Amino acid sequence: MTIHAEQEEPVLSDTARDRALAEELFAALRAKTGDGIGITRASYGEGESAALDIVAAKARALGLKTERDAGANLVVTLEGREPDLPFLACGSHLDSVRQGGNFDGAAGVVAGLAVLAGFRADGVAPRRTLKLYALRGEESARFGMAYMGSNALFGHLTPADLEARDARSGRTLAACMRDVGVAVERVAKGEPLLDAKRVGAWIELHIEQGPVLVARGLPIGIVTGIRGNLRHRSVECVGEAGHSGAVPRWLRRDAVFATAELITHLDRHWRTMLERGRDVVVTSGVFGTDPQEHAIARIPGIVRFSFEVRSQSKETLEAFYDLFLTECGLIGDERGVEFKLDRRIESAPATMDAEWTRRMKKAARGLGLPDEDIPSGAGHDAAVFANAGIPSAMIFVRNEQGSHNPREAMDMDDFLAGVAVMRAALKEAEQ
Amino acid sequence: MTIHAEQEEPVLSDTARDRALAEELFAALRAKTGDGIGITRASYGEGESAALDIVAAKARALGLKTERDAGANLVVTLEGREPDLPFLACGSHLDSVRQGGNFDGAAGVVAGLAVLAGFRADGVAPRRTLKLYALRGEESARFGMAYMGSNALFGHLTPADLEARDARSGRTLAACMRDVGVAVERVAKGEPLLDAKRVGAWIELHIEQGPVLVARGLPIGIVTGIRGNLRHRSVECVGEAGHSGAVPRWLRRDAVFATAELITHLDRHWRTMLERGRDVVVTSGVFGTDPQEHAIARIPGIVRFSFEVRSQSKETLEAFYDLFLTECGLIGDERGVEFKLDRRIESAPATMDAEWTRRMKKAARGLGLPDEDIPSGAGHDAAVFANAGIPSAMIFVRNEQGSHNPREAMDMDDFLAGVAVMRAALKEAEQ
Repeated sequence: MTIHAEQEEPVLSDTARDRALAEELFAALRAKTGDGIGITRASYGEGESAALDIVAAKARALGLKTERDAGANLVVTLEGREPDLPFLACGSHLDSVRQGGNFDGAAGVVAGLAVLAGFRADGVAPRRTLKLYALRGEESARFGMAYMGSNALFGHLTPADLEARDARSGRTLAACMRDVGVAVERVAKGEPLLDAKRVGAWIELHIEQGPVLVARGLPIGIVTGIRGNLRHRSVECVGEAGHSGAVPRWLRRDAVFATAELITHLDRHWRTMLERGRDVVVTSGVFGTDPQEHAIARIPGIVRFSFEVRSQSKETLEAFYDLFLTECGLIGDERGVEFKLDRRIESAPATMDAEWTRRMKKAARGLGLPDEDIPSGAGHDAAVFANAGIPSAMIFVRNEQGSHNPREAMDMDDFLAGVAVMRAALKEAEQ
Repeated sequence: MTIHAEQEEPVLSDTARDRALAEELFAALRAKTGDGIGITRASYGEGESAALDIVAAKARALGLKTERDAGANLVVTLEGREPDLPFLACGSHLDSVRQGGNFDGAAGVVAGLAVLAGFRADGVAPRRTLKLYALRGEESARFGMAYMGSNALFGHLTPADLEARDARSGRTLAACMRDVGVAVERVAKGEPLLDAKRVGAWIELHIEQGPVLVARGLPIGIVTGIRGNLRHRSVECVGEAGHSGAVPRWLRRDAVFATAELITHLDRHWRTMLERGRDVVVTSGVFGTDPQEHAIARIPGIVRFSFEVRSQSKETLEAFYDLFLTECGLIGDERGVEFKLDRRIESAPATMDAEWTRRMKKAARGLGLPDEDIPSGAGHDAAVFANAGIPSAMIFVRNEQGSHNPREAMDMDDFLAGVAVMRAALKEAEQ
């Protein structure tokens, strides 16, 4: 059991029914797609298809209509009172990394099914039609790119993307998509498989992949935005190699000392921006002297490092990037080194819809749950929906030990709290 | 021509004779041991033996007595007026790295021969016997350890050292030593081949392997000491890996940011110590995240780096090492990382003899040359002689582009200035 922050016990309706459904589905998914260590549901592969089948069968058993769309995703429908209006979509993905956890992705699909099934059982007829999407192809593990399922829906996959190959089988994404029934010819033409104007909202519940909710003692968080990023895969700091004993400080052009100072200055800027309330994280995940020429007794002439800044705000990303360039210039001048940048790579942030976020928070408060903001540092299908112009919202559920590993640990009580918030927000919107 | 600092043109006696000898010998060495790119005189190998032969033949032609000692080094003798007194030794080494330069080592041997030959030609009879040593086996390039020739003289090579192998031929140091006539059985027993009490001084001229004399516009420098060092081959900073987007600053245990801060703090301490007049250089030549697990989007959980501090002063080495330990502890606590140290490796500094250093400086001033101090950051045979209790002194000659490469560039005028200082200092001592 996760230790909760002290608070009143929340009053959750439908909890017992949700718990039974969730326990049954998670157990079935684990039994079918377990690999002995974790679970494996390869994107556009066997485990993913099996997971879709498990959820579809359960949905039909609960009296809901199921179909596969042109992207071979599972779509579960609860017809609304005014079916000509744009429908409300919820869901997440059912694929996983190899030897991953059972909840990354699946939690959002199970949550959506619990909400639709609950409405169906209680005879609640929403104004707009509700659709649950169990998406394929969100994880980048198999084909080196993420959000293939949602990107295919909006016509964003290129022919080059479709030629990406699974390193293990050597098969292309196009071939694997075709196997499971995707309309690959339409995808290849960039034709949208789903008309964004027909979608009134996208609501996604997902486990948190970071440690914030655990550290803050919160069962859930309402996502305010999905961080974008600016990256350089490899910045080269070029100084001058030399004998470590024979060159004094004033004649050195040491690439390690220069880059260490750069990182330390970026750390100070980061701290200042946080103090001023900006959302930002900075990482240099790959960093090293050149194995071809480095030695203990040699002043390092070259360091190569990756640079990544992430923020929910485009302005903050650019502001930090400006500081980065300035520091490269100043430290370069000061220390006689040059920072050579490779191509800048960008990924746009996605903002969650203000109205839906407000509704989620109100629902949480109404249930006696905390309504705290949390940014999403990792990417999600919700970013693709949001950037397609669809009002989107996300609920994060507390999860220990990160994701993409078999040790991910979501407490069922936390999950049920997230489902309750989702249900209440949809009810408020659809009365 | 190197640009000299503005000063009166020095008055050098014997310059023309020294120049002719030096040009002849350097040309002969280059012709015999050139490899097409640089020069190669492998330790206890063919090129080294050829170089010894060239110098021996020239010494005999100049009327000097030559022999090989039990270490197979060339010894050239000019008998003194009181031959029972401890003799004065000068010289350097004749081996080189592969594709190295012609002056690293050889300059000191040629300088010694010029002094002995000059005395012989002018009928100068010193009080004490003068011996020139053309040493073998100074470079670590072939067998992975340096100063084999001088260490063998003082009984410092171990049986394990003798089993070190040349990576190219696979042959042991012992076998290669035996080939050229070293009394390997005595070396293996740790028996000194030279009685340190018989040696009154060791005087070595060497090209500077760093850029200080070039940068300061000085043709020569008088070495005050040879830096020792404290090292860790690999310090491991252990933090925690995590998703670069999903973990906020306050929950990070980023090994790159922690180690960057450590290096930056060490840099500040270094600057402070220099401002307070300490001799110290600090280097982290090998630095990197773990290629097995690093990624652009992953907070680095591990960094491994080498640490090296060098100083002429044992006290300064230990003081800096204390600061290093303190910073590891403070930054470790602050950032939730741990710095794990491997075995500490030490090399003792060597102090040059005060009386001989004074004599060198006086000689330089008498010749209209600058008499500036310079520390030796690189190791030299002189450190082995000094730590064997023999009063030792070194003259550095300005040299561009470092050593251990074919581009090393010593100006003949600078070399002749060094020879003149050596001669004048020996004259003063032996009158």
